[in-house]
Amino acid sequence: MAFFSHEGHQVYYEVHGEAEKTLIILNGIMMSAASWQPFIKLLKEHVRVVLVDFFDQGKSSKTHVPYDQTLQVGLVKALIDHVRCSSGKMVLLGISYGGEIAMKVAVEAPEAVDALILANTTDYTDPQLKAVGDAWISAAKTYDGRVFFKATIPPIYSGGFYERQLEWLSAREKMFSELFKPEWYEAFIRLVISAENHDERHRLSRIKVPTLVIGADQDQITPLRCQKRIAGAISNARFMVIPECGHASMYEKPHEFFAMVLGFIGTAKETFEI
Amino acid sequence: MAFFSHEGHQVYYEVHGEAEKTLIILNGIMMSAASWQPFIKLLKEHVRVVLVDFFDQGKSSKTHVPYDQTLQVGLVKALIDHVRCSSGKMVLLGISYGGEIAMKVAVEAPEAVDALILANTTDYTDPQLKAVGDAWISAAKTYDGRVFFKATIPPIYSGGFYERQLEWLSAREKMFSELFKPEWYEAFIRLVISAENHDERHRLSRIKVPTLVIGADQDQITPLRCQKRIAGAISNARFMVIPECGHASMYEKPHEFFAMVLGFIGTAKETFEI
Amino acid sequence: MAFFSHEGHQVYYEVHGEAEKTLIILNGIMMSAASWQPFIKLLKEHVRVVLVDFFDQGKSSKTHVPYDQTLQVGLVKALIDHVRCSSGKMVLLGISYGGEIAMKVAVEAPEAVDALILANTTDYTDPQLKAVGDAWISAAKTYDGRVFFKATIPPIYSGGFYERQLEWLSAREKMFSELFKPEWYEAFIRLVISAENHDERHRLSRIKVPTLVIGADQDQITPLRCQKRIAGAISNARFMVIPECGHASMYEKPHEFFAMVLGFIGTAKETFEI
Amino acid sequence: MAFFSHEGHQVYYEVHGEAEKTLIILNGIMMSAASWQPFIKLLKEHVRVVLVDFFDQGKSSKTHVPYDQTLQVGLVKALIDHVRCSSGKMVLLGISYGGEIAMKVAVEAPEAVDALILANTTDYTDPQLKAVGDAWISAAKTYDGRVFFKATIPPIYSGGFYERQLEWLSAREKMFSELFKPEWYEAFIRLVISAENHDERHRLSRIKVPTLVIGADQDQITPLRCQKRIAGAISNARFMVIPECGHASMYEKPHEFFAMVLGFIGTAKETFEI
Repeated sequence: MAFFSHEGHQVYYEVHGEAEKTLIILNGIMMSAASWQPFIKLLKEHVRVVLVDFFDQGKSSKTHVPYDQTLQVGLVKALIDHVRCSSGKMVLLGISYGGEIAMKVAVEAPEAVDALILANTTDYTDPQLKAVGDAWISAAKTYDGRVFFKATIPPIYSGGFYERQLEWLSAREKMFSELFKPEWYEAFIRLVISAENHDERHRLSRIKVPTLVIGADQDQITPLRCQKRIAGAISNARFMVIPECGHASMYEKPHEFFAMVLGFIGTAKETFEI
Repeated sequence: MAFFSHEGHQVYYEVHGEAEKTLIILNGIMMSAASWQPFIKLLKEHVRVVLVDFFDQGKSSKTHVPYDQTLQVGLVKALIDHVRCSSGKMVLLGISYGGEIAMKVAVEAPEAVDALILANTTDYTDPQLKAVGDAWISAAKTYDGRVFFKATIPPIYSGGFYERQLEWLSAREKMFSELFKPEWYEAFIRLVISAENHDERHRLSRIKVPTLVIGADQDQITPLRCQKRIAGAISNARFMVIPECGHASMYEKPHEFFAMVLGFIGTAKETFEI
Repeated sequence: MAFFSHEGHQVYYEVHGEAEKTLIILNGIMMSAASWQPFIKLLKEHVRVVLVDFFDQGKSSKTHVPYDQTLQVGLVKALIDHVRCSSGKMVLLGISYGGEIAMKVAVEAPEAVDALILANTTDYTDPQLKAVGDAWISAAKTYDGRVFFKATIPPIYSGGFYERQLEWLSAREKMFSELFKPEWYEAFIRLVISAENHDERHRLSRIKVPTLVIGADQDQITPLRCQKRIAGAISNARFMVIPECGHASMYEKPHEFFAMVLGFIGTAKETFEI
Repeated sequence: MAFFSHEGHQVYYEVHGEAEKTLIILNGIMMSAASWQPFIKLLKEHVRVVLVDFFDQGKSSKTHVPYDQTLQVGLVKALIDHVRCSSGKMVLLGISYGGEIAMKVAVEAPEAVDALILANTTDYTDPQLKAVGDAWISAAKTYDGRVFFKATIPPIYSGGFYERQLEWLSAREKMFSELFKPEWYEAFIRLVISAENHDERHRLSRIKVPTLVIGADQDQITPLRCQKRIAGAISNARFMVIPECGHASMYEKPHEFFAMVLGFIGTAKETFEI
């Protein structure tokens, strides 16, 4: 519930709880700090939770000009300095777009991150993922919430979830079509474009901190093979899969997602003499 | 290279080769008889190939009014009567939309089909697949070939194929954007709508003829679980999977696809004493 | 480090730590309370850990006569009464054979269990698993540690782990061949036989407590399809998979295993308003 | 139904049919030429079938001394010379052990093989597979058919097949226990040992002929990842998977297996202009 200034823009962030360990959470592209609302009560029993809106997300500044992910990486580094506690440990969690930023921060500022969680994300915007982004941009340019919803939402859930949650999805479709203003779509388009050149395949091996990689077997946006590649490249990676789950794993399987996250945070530094 | 009349509309079909067994091939939704051109030389060495355009596809009539798949099922039944040879065996192959029609024909006219091949198809338009259709309709309504291409093409290939074949895909994108006229998009929209209520889950067990079910492990449109369900429901089904392959399997992995098809046709009636 | 008496036999158990929640851990068939030694330090930071040897395991009595799993279920029920704290919550974790007992306890004594963890286990000793047991019995009857090791150990790990840990496995083979006495093999044979008629497929739906089901994608003894069936049958199940891991998941991937276990325990009762 | 002499030993082989293309079939380790009996009628309609017993198999000579796979590779090269027809094409199919020999022949005698089929096999005897072999040797050394059967047979089928075919398996167990004489077990042990150092990982890329790689998703002996590695290493490989099937795919899913084999043979040299 506060702002700080970075590169002449306002960054919106929230801090919840007072635990010793800090968990900074980086959003997926269509999310904002508000998306984590249902999970704060649980999380703050275990960690000091820091939520943040990237530029062009939620309550942070709109940039109005194109950029690449370097801008968001800078925002996160500044945020880390801003919320750091003297002795506290810092865990960085990113989902999807947020995972792309998180791995860049872990590569470039290894001293700032004690543990890393990469969920439903990829090390590389391959041509197919770029094409998915292009389709989302086309849909956004209609400025029509229902068109945008139909183009972007169905592939981010598993088939089973989609079928079981039709009513909830229908309510969200209505919310999208009412809430989103042209400047939201323009910001979204800039976010998509900023990820087009994402490629950390050759830098991932620099990450040495304990890292949890979460994948979902029905993730169509960043399929399991992306997380497999990430887990294979990071020497200290632990790899967990949520079955019968799509890309938006924390909404679709919150029990599994947060059990994995909190279980990892509690055991990240552990060593076993087997 | 001929037409016949059905329900007041013209049906375009082609017959290639003179083999004793007849293979009728039913197209996917964005295809036409012309899509099978690269494979005719091979196929007609083994079978008499019958290609056909559904209503609202290729050179068959545009309907100009909405319909459901019953219309296309009628077209196929009429085609079977039209091309039947006195003693020859009839194999029906359908991919995707064509597979949906093929299974309906096999359920309703069991005497007309000696063997069945269902590739990359589903027994049920579930809500997620319906939403994919809705997104395709939105893209079609832009009448913009590039927008339409970006919305529909990337998810029908595997990630690896998409990355390797960027040039070929780019050429096809150009072709799409030049060739397609408003009436093509309108026909396409009617085809999508005709599949919305497709649900053969409770009738599939009536199919008793030897049936080959082909799936692909990276099929995002009709995922492997659909073919698994189909193979489980048909008592005489054989099930084969093409790995590292997406929805448009016959383009992406033609060697595997046609070896499976021809191998099945040559062995469909075989029994083994093990 | 204590014993209690049940059905005229001695039951060996250990209690570690003083946390409010109690975690009772039930061993796989070739394990004993001692197998969990490397993990006690971690676990007791979070829970009061109760380890136990089944009859015919470790330091509990040898039965000298055949029995079925009912005997071990009785042992666990008695153990629960024995270690119960007035207000503390009771979590029951079973791996493999221990999971089979755990699910029976949860079915028969629902009031005794607040949460359930079923790892690398099955609801049913199918004919193939029975045949695996028969092969293990044959190997045990040689009373030759090296023969027994070669017959039982390789299939319980993933290929990759087996290759990476050859030295550790070789040390364990040596230990097996020196340590095990005829009466160990006879006890092992009785344990295998006690599981032959295990079949909880029709009772699992009675389990209503929060349940974590852990599977591993290279588990050859109780393949992933067993855990999928279990997770599908229990209404309040959460399902997590450890990739590139075999049957002995807690040895092969201890970070993943215990993060899942502790994460689940910390969130089992949570509800989310999404 | 004939013999030829090689390295002072007798090689038993059979030739069936008179088709232009020749298909040489190499057995798995526990098989013999007789194992293919149920499939000859089908195969010889399409190809001239050559069956053969490796040394220490069926009616070929017992070696009485240890050897490695080089001996069997020599046998196959001699067989190829022996059965070659002036103009006819030569296809080499090997399953499991036979696939290991087949890939070695294709690497070393590329001019002799027009197309290659590798089913349920591996490019490398990894430590776990070696341990499986060790367990089989232990079981063979009991000279007890029922012990041997329990140790070797259950893991070569899928769980579902094993459950459905209990009666057939039981009959085979009886046959094993009656038929096999000490010298059969000694020959079997030499065959297992001959494969211990199999490692073609660095030579597979030399194979340039059209190659079909067949895998099965429940193969526990040579899991799917082995065939994936093989298919990835051979530039002209086609890769097909039989779902819900174990290691002995040609027995478990003969329709799928032989449709793949014959379909591939009929299309191996095809090129498509897409």
